[in-house]
Amino acid sequence: MTENQILIIFGASGDLTARKLIPGLFNLCKRGYLPEKFAILGVSRTDYTDEAYRKKVVYDNQHLGDQSSKEDLDIFARLVHYQPSDTKDADDYKTLKARISEINSAEDDNCIFYLSTPPSLYEVIGAHLAGVGLNNEENGWKRLIIEKPFGYDLGSALDLNKKLLDCFNEQQIYRIDHYLGKETVQNVMVARFANSIFEPLWNRNYIQRVEITAAESVGVEKRGGYYDGSGALRDMVQNHLLQLLSMVAMEPPVKVDAHSIRNEKLKLFQSLRPMTPEDIRSNVVRGQYGAASYKGEQLLGYREEEGVDQSSRTETYAALKFYIDNWRWADVPFYIRTGKRMPTRVSEVVIHFKDNHIQLFNQERIDNSHNVLVFRIQPNEGVLLKFGLKIPGSGFNVQTVNMDFLYNDLTDKYVPEAYERLILDCMRGDATLYARGDSVEAAWKFIDPILEAWKSDPSIPLYGYPSGTWGPEQSDSLIEKGDWRNPCKNLTDDGIYCEL
Amino acid sequence: MTENQILIIFGASGDLTARKLIPGLFNLCKRGYLPEKFAILGVSRTDYTDEAYRKKVVYDNQHLGDQSSKEDLDIFARLVHYQPSDTKDADDYKTLKARISEINSAEDDNCIFYLSTPPSLYEVIGAHLAGVGLNNEENGWKRLIIEKPFGYDLGSALDLNKKLLDCFNEQQIYRIDHYLGKETVQNVMVARFANSIFEPLWNRNYIQRVEITAAESVGVEKRGGYYDGSGALRDMVQNHLLQLLSMVAMEPPVKVDAHSIRNEKLKLFQSLRPMTPEDIRSNVVRGQYGAASYKGEQLLGYREEEGVDQSSRTETYAALKFYIDNWRWADVPFYIRTGKRMPTRVSEVVIHFKDNHIQLFNQERIDNSHNVLVFRIQPNEGVLLKFGLKIPGSGFNVQTVNMDFLYNDLTDKYVPEAYERLILDCMRGDATLYARGDSVEAAWKFIDPILEAWKSDPSIPLYGYPSGTWGPEQSDSLIEKGDWRNPCKNLTDDGIYCEL
Repeated sequence: MTENQILIIFGASGDLTARKLIPGLFNLCKRGYLPEKFAILGVSRTDYTDEAYRKKVVYDNQHLGDQSSKEDLDIFARLVHYQPSDTKDADDYKTLKARISEINSAEDDNCIFYLSTPPSLYEVIGAHLAGVGLNNEENGWKRLIIEKPFGYDLGSALDLNKKLLDCFNEQQIYRIDHYLGKETVQNVMVARFANSIFEPLWNRNYIQRVEITAAESVGVEKRGGYYDGSGALRDMVQNHLLQLLSMVAMEPPVKVDAHSIRNEKLKLFQSLRPMTPEDIRSNVVRGQYGAASYKGEQLLGYREEEGVDQSSRTETYAALKFYIDNWRWADVPFYIRTGKRMPTRVSEVVIHFKDNHIQLFNQERIDNSHNVLVFRIQPNEGVLLKFGLKIPGSGFNVQTVNMDFLYNDLTDKYVPEAYERLILDCMRGDATLYARGDSVEAAWKFIDPILEAWKSDPSIPLYGYPSGTWGPEQSDSLIEKGDWRNPCKNLTDDGIYCEL
Repeated sequence: MTENQILIIFGASGDLTARKLIPGLFNLCKRGYLPEKFAILGVSRTDYTDEAYRKKVVYDNQHLGDQSSKEDLDIFARLVHYQPSDTKDADDYKTLKARISEINSAEDDNCIFYLSTPPSLYEVIGAHLAGVGLNNEENGWKRLIIEKPFGYDLGSALDLNKKLLDCFNEQQIYRIDHYLGKETVQNVMVARFANSIFEPLWNRNYIQRVEITAAESVGVEKRGGYYDGSGALRDMVQNHLLQLLSMVAMEPPVKVDAHSIRNEKLKLFQSLRPMTPEDIRSNVVRGQYGAASYKGEQLLGYREEEGVDQSSRTETYAALKFYIDNWRWADVPFYIRTGKRMPTRVSEVVIHFKDNHIQLFNQERIDNSHNVLVFRIQPNEGVLLKFGLKIPGSGFNVQTVNMDFLYNDLTDKYVPEAYERLILDCMRGDATLYARGDSVEAAWKFIDPILEAWKSDPSIPLYGYPSGTWGPEQSDSLIEKGDWRNPCKNLTDDGIYCEL
């Protein structure tokens, strides 16, 4: 099923390679998912030998886990090679091509080029690869994996796609969004379409609103320099959260393959109601975290963080209320919210069903009286359904109780990490969970006016919020009664959220 | 809310009184639910003094629980009185009436007459009470609680109702079915009508079939004499299980009161498709347990049990497939099954939803691929939803997982026992959970042709089944692929069922 191939990693000495790519490949190796003939070729400017590189990314790599046997490491290390190379030097690509041929013992030159580099290098590398014919699929396929961000705004995304398509065709390009590699993200789609009880309810008749929250408890940490040029909308919303939204809201695909699913995602993005200047003012809230003492710790404000401009107006929090103008979702408000320095780390999709049109029983419920279905992406991955049952005793008073399923209960199942899953998909030529160029552009088309307005209109407020809170209180005005599901109301002393 | 009143128990020295009625009243007393002026007056033929009767049913009653304090018992005992009386002696009713007046310190004579006697005495007692004017509500209401069986067949039920209605009106008659006092039975109705997500699915478009199972692990025990004249259909189906069915299948009531809910139940019974002789032959299976060695124990066959005729043709097992001819349920098969000496004790309602019309994902499910909602009546009371999620890893294969809610998780809630709940309801004049005469008759109308055919047509088989099995295997033919949900597939060594 998985053809013989070589995986070439650009940015081979970088953090992502050691932290995610090599561990993912190592697990595939241990679990027997690699093809018979397979090699990894690390490429970066640093002058490692094969041996030195193996030591760095295999034997000395703390991310490979303590339980790995020497034998497992040896087997894997034999697959790893290294080629020092200047990504901007055309001659080095000739050397690279020769090295690939030398390593490759298979008949065909099936190659994945994983661009784990700054985005500014994507088009350079793409052009040079094409320059030496490494885009040519006559003798084996050639695939290009690129990491987000896919552009900085609509214009740059269009430009990047265009330049990549000068050298590779769309079928060769795999835009990785590790969020889509998470089991629980994929399960939103599976839960919808594998259960006859959900799809009948999955529309404007029964759903009152949908909330998608991705909260981080950390600040920008060491990424201040990068983050200050990006912000929450670019870093989280345009890619991860809109992709997640598409899983929640898209129409059923014709079948489960890359083409059909990505067609539906594109349609969903095309159905997003464009934000007018008025919408941006009233339905979008941006914020920036300030210094605060939280749980006994003194936390820096965003502008005090390393690498951040002291007068930065970059948002570390964004909340949006928006609509999807299609038959299924007309007039159902959708909410996306993300921020740093929130009270807890949690990502979830919350489906709020409408109230009963008839309140037959006295509604002495403990919390909201409507049904709520929660897909918890992380942590404590699982599904939660809130529904009403009778309070024991006389009468028919109703309380809300929880049914839940926790992924952890599947103790016998190995749950692959996102990168591991996604790399294997690319090795097999399955682009289902990779973003297609047209849908990346459509997502930018929705986000771009917001970025543009924020940049050009200084009268749109940037609210401060103390670290350790759920963002600016102005975001409460987006939702009826400010009734966001803030799932850490019940934080334990350890800061671990205790429901679901 | 609960008016001052006297509760008169006929059959006061009987088993039910000591085991259920007195404990229920004792709990109401402890929990402060009794009105300010309240008395219990036990009536039976035995010649107890008040003191002797108090000793018997209060101080020496093991069913009152070990944790009762002396003080609690004293407070309750003071409410208890006794009057020896021959239920067939008219003069004794005059004495009884005088005794009630003597005990009663309230202004009005509010009386509940609880007939915990053989059914043959209902009309005698009713007539004699009327004879001395104890049916007259001029000075306080008079209510009559009667225990099942409400008739032996349609004819006797019509006759009993008629005779009772000669002395009391329908509003005064409370036909108790303790099954309806169970929290989990009532919750079937609450779950349907308090949750916007269930009702849209609750019809022929989305439900494939409904199973109601009430399995007992015991045999007839010491009730052989009574049971042999009754059988599973009369003992369980005509009353408990059809009442439970009505909770599952009735239309939403106009409001939550006795009149509205019982109207809907009646309509449901009236919509049961009458069984033709052909239906009875092909859609009903009766069985009788035989001797078997089960879990190291040698169990007697039914005909060997004490009090049972050695050539008895009384069924200890019955399974029915039937239809409800209304707009909601047309062509949806319903199944009711009950039996003694099954592998475990379990009562549950199982809603099988239809398969997805489109199987989008590979269906490598561990068990059935459709959604199943289970209301567990007993034991391990709760709600279980089976739904499909992704098997972790590549591709989109689906497995069935469980979400559940267990009543035990509501540790802070007191769950009243069925009799406690029902007696309080009657004290408050709430007949919602009591069976109305017309619906009892309608239920008999459905059951009667089956009893009649079984009796008159010896060619209809009575299958034997070994004790400790799920009944005659012929019942598998009622359901597609014999696919009953037999919930003790996973019995633990203790015989305790381990799922939900």
